[in-house]
Amino acid sequence: MRTITQLAVVGLVAVVGPAVVGQSSPEAPSIADAYRNAAERIIQATLAGNDGYTKLEELCDGIGHRLSGSPQLDQAIHWAADAMRADGQENVRIEKVMVPHWVRGKESLTMTEPRRAPIAMLGLGGSVGTPPEGITAAVVVVRNEDELEALGEDARGKIVLFNNPMPTYDPERGSGYGTTVRFRSNGARLASEKGAVACLVRSVTAHSLRSPHTGAMRYGDAKVKIPAAAVSTEDAAMIARLQARGVPVVVTLNMEAQTLDPAVSGNVIGELRGSTNPDEIVVIGGHIDSWDVGQGAHDDGTGCVMAMEAINVLRRLNMIPRRTIRVVLWTNEENGLAGARQYAKEHADELANHVAAIESDSGGFRPVGYSVDCADETRLGIAAEQLRDIMSLLESIGATDVETGFSGADVGPMKDSGVILMGHRVEGLKYFNYHHSQADTLDKVDPQEFSQNVAVMATVAYILADMPQRLGEAGSP
Amino acid sequence: MRTITQLAVVGLVAVVGPAVVGQSSPEAPSIADAYRNAAERIIQATLAGNDGYTKLEELCDGIGHRLSGSPQLDQAIHWAADAMRADGQENVRIEKVMVPHWVRGKESLTMTEPRRAPIAMLGLGGSVGTPPEGITAAVVVVRNEDELEALGEDARGKIVLFNNPMPTYDPERGSGYGTTVRFRSNGARLASEKGAVACLVRSVTAHSLRSPHTGAMRYGDAKVKIPAAAVSTEDAAMIARLQARGVPVVVTLNMEAQTLDPAVSGNVIGELRGSTNPDEIVVIGGHIDSWDVGQGAHDDGTGCVMAMEAINVLRRLNMIPRRTIRVVLWTNEENGLAGARQYAKEHADELANHVAAIESDSGGFRPVGYSVDCADETRLGIAAEQLRDIMSLLESIGATDVETGFSGADVGPMKDSGVILMGHRVEGLKYFNYHHSQADTLDKVDPQEFSQNVAVMATVAYILADMPQRLGEAGSP
Repeated sequence: MRTITQLAVVGLVAVVGPAVVGQSSPEAPSIADAYRNAAERIIQATLAGNDGYTKLEELCDGIGHRLSGSPQLDQAIHWAADAMRADGQENVRIEKVMVPHWVRGKESLTMTEPRRAPIAMLGLGGSVGTPPEGITAAVVVVRNEDELEALGEDARGKIVLFNNPMPTYDPERGSGYGTTVRFRSNGARLASEKGAVACLVRSVTAHSLRSPHTGAMRYGDAKVKIPAAAVSTEDAAMIARLQARGVPVVVTLNMEAQTLDPAVSGNVIGELRGSTNPDEIVVIGGHIDSWDVGQGAHDDGTGCVMAMEAINVLRRLNMIPRRTIRVVLWTNEENGLAGARQYAKEHADELANHVAAIESDSGGFRPVGYSVDCADETRLGIAAEQLRDIMSLLESIGATDVETGFSGADVGPMKDSGVILMGHRVEGLKYFNYHHSQADTLDKVDPQEFSQNVAVMATVAYILADMPQRLGEAGSP
Repeated sequence: MRTITQLAVVGLVAVVGPAVVGQSSPEAPSIADAYRNAAERIIQATLAGNDGYTKLEELCDGIGHRLSGSPQLDQAIHWAADAMRADGQENVRIEKVMVPHWVRGKESLTMTEPRRAPIAMLGLGGSVGTPPEGITAAVVVVRNEDELEALGEDARGKIVLFNNPMPTYDPERGSGYGTTVRFRSNGARLASEKGAVACLVRSVTAHSLRSPHTGAMRYGDAKVKIPAAAVSTEDAAMIARLQARGVPVVVTLNMEAQTLDPAVSGNVIGELRGSTNPDEIVVIGGHIDSWDVGQGAHDDGTGCVMAMEAINVLRRLNMIPRRTIRVVLWTNEENGLAGARQYAKEHADELANHVAAIESDSGGFRPVGYSVDCADETRLGIAAEQLRDIMSLLESIGATDVETGFSGADVGPMKDSGVILMGHRVEGLKYFNYHHSQADTLDKVDPQEFSQNVAVMATVAYILADMPQRLGEAGSP
């Protein structure tokens, strides 16, 4: 139920008629003008207190990390459904998804020459294991594909180490993740083609305290699947220094990793049903799975709980928008994207009625705005303008920035159906310090910043679900 | 052999007669005036290129960490002696020292309630082990001694966790190490008095990526020795959050730690013998031992190599001061101080001729100056003034700061003999991020900053060993 004030404001928009989108002038009230009071109410109420951090604590401390196929993921899925039911959400359900089931098992990497020393490592998700006695071989260090190519036959029988440092975060260019993650993804395939017996990759992070970072790898069309593991930046640098000094390095890699039969998992769904147009849907969510290290706090506990708490805040305020806000917590983002694919497939009939699909999967740091993406350039342009207008309401939080482009892995499969995709954006300085490592724990999430994220997501979801015109469509109804 | 220029300058000081120490005026040339050319020559030559980082690489990558009693410490001791001989240093020798021999063995800490999860931990040096089956008990979290006291009988049979966060580095107050390290040192004794069965301590660091930090602990007069371990700040915070939510936490601690019979070790000594007063000695050095994690790069590889390279630079420049510069690499600083005590004892007859004893044990970051300490207040005051004068020559490096106070654990035992002690000071922001952890590795040492340290130590040691008057004594000879 909306308040008198809000109804009056919304009514005003209708009376004034088709607004010039994205412009604020006395003649043509913007979306922001129409929703200023609503936004302030949501923001104030959320920042004054919400259950988000408590939920995050239950997920991170109470359950911990949750890789596809693990009992912890099942627990997390049921916990999320139960929590949304307890909040009074509607149509709470778990939609079954079959997911890959990779298990790490015991693993270790030991330098045996020039001296015996343990190396900080994490096997890469999807990797095969080693024989029980491990793989012992000389290491050859390369910086990139060209250096591997230049080795020719010299990689045969060796363990290839890709030592390509991720650049430090740059406020202009962002993180260097995109430029270096390819070695994690493709390194084993490339090394295998050269006859290598295993592949090591420098962890994809610019900041380390001897902290290995795992993540997905793919064999693609590799004829021979060789084991692949990430090593800490410190260990990668040390091996590279030894090689530069002409000191041969030999290591023994032991990995019990294996891929079991696919496991049953699920996407978790809960709704704040719309008051007048319940079949039109604004999706908000994150992914409920994580890697099998740390607590999956920033990746992606915050994304999940942000969405869960956004509709909780709205329901407690009795601010029920015209359209439905649907929380979707996708499963298996990390190593398969099975949840995202299945959601797009099973809900194909509904996608034309998906007003927007918003994902938060960049952590729970200080919110800065949204990205937006759409296969239809015209609608993308209109949506971006509308969002810039809407985000002006988040100025007190500093989350006013709107950019176009990639907006999330889990919403991606809906792009071809014309759905407008949005990515919840946060300050990116520290994300890759913790990402996929033992250090992705709740203490890294600032409670105040997390509440700001909840406020931003609740506000934006509410407006998109309530404003007369659909996002990406000019004018008002 | 000193150069003509230097001799002329030094001569000038002698001609002018007793200089007013620490003041620079046309009538009374300061020490700085007399040594300006020499300092510039040392600084320029050192920064243009030196072997320090290569030596540090050999120590860190080639040998690694080196706890008292370990074969690696023996290796490091012989490596240092060999390196100084290869540099042409005089009187290179290893002075035998018996050291405590604590071994870590296998260890683990596992949370079993409310869920099963490994906890990032490192046993504390000197701790006893657990029975083979480990110790399983409920955890009780306290912030400090008062909270422990308030527990009364509630600590009996429990595992006490001291969760006292170290404050972040403050440019004015420095690190928060001093305010929180007492829980690591004394926690087990205090917990034991209350009937606890084991003691956990939040790692003494303000920055963590799930990185436990070890260090020494003492049982003192404890009637029952209980095992003690450090846990990562993340794990400490998690257990504290669970307790705050009323969720009981149970853990199992397994430690094979034990103290073996004392082992043979040694202080490493090498000299740049003085040209005219070789029996007067300026000691420079660091400690050759480290904890059994990481590479002991900043703690204290840099201190050792800084001193070794300082006299190497001077010898290559043929800048032989009047007095002797003696490099001392003390053994067993970390868990016993046996090397420091033995040096002071065995060299008791010489201490009256120790012009200064300089230690570097704060890491190899950007140098900022020196601390100075002396049991004799009058000599301390004069020495501090003289040092401020001398350090003005290091302005190009920014290492001009002189303060009085604690100047190092290894030089400490010489204080009662009236020796002027000095501590090599560096920028302190990051030291405790790495200290006593797996992350204390060579990549954390910036080659340029390390060269600056060598330049500063070489310059200061040269001047103290060459200036007409002794440090702490007014006037010129």
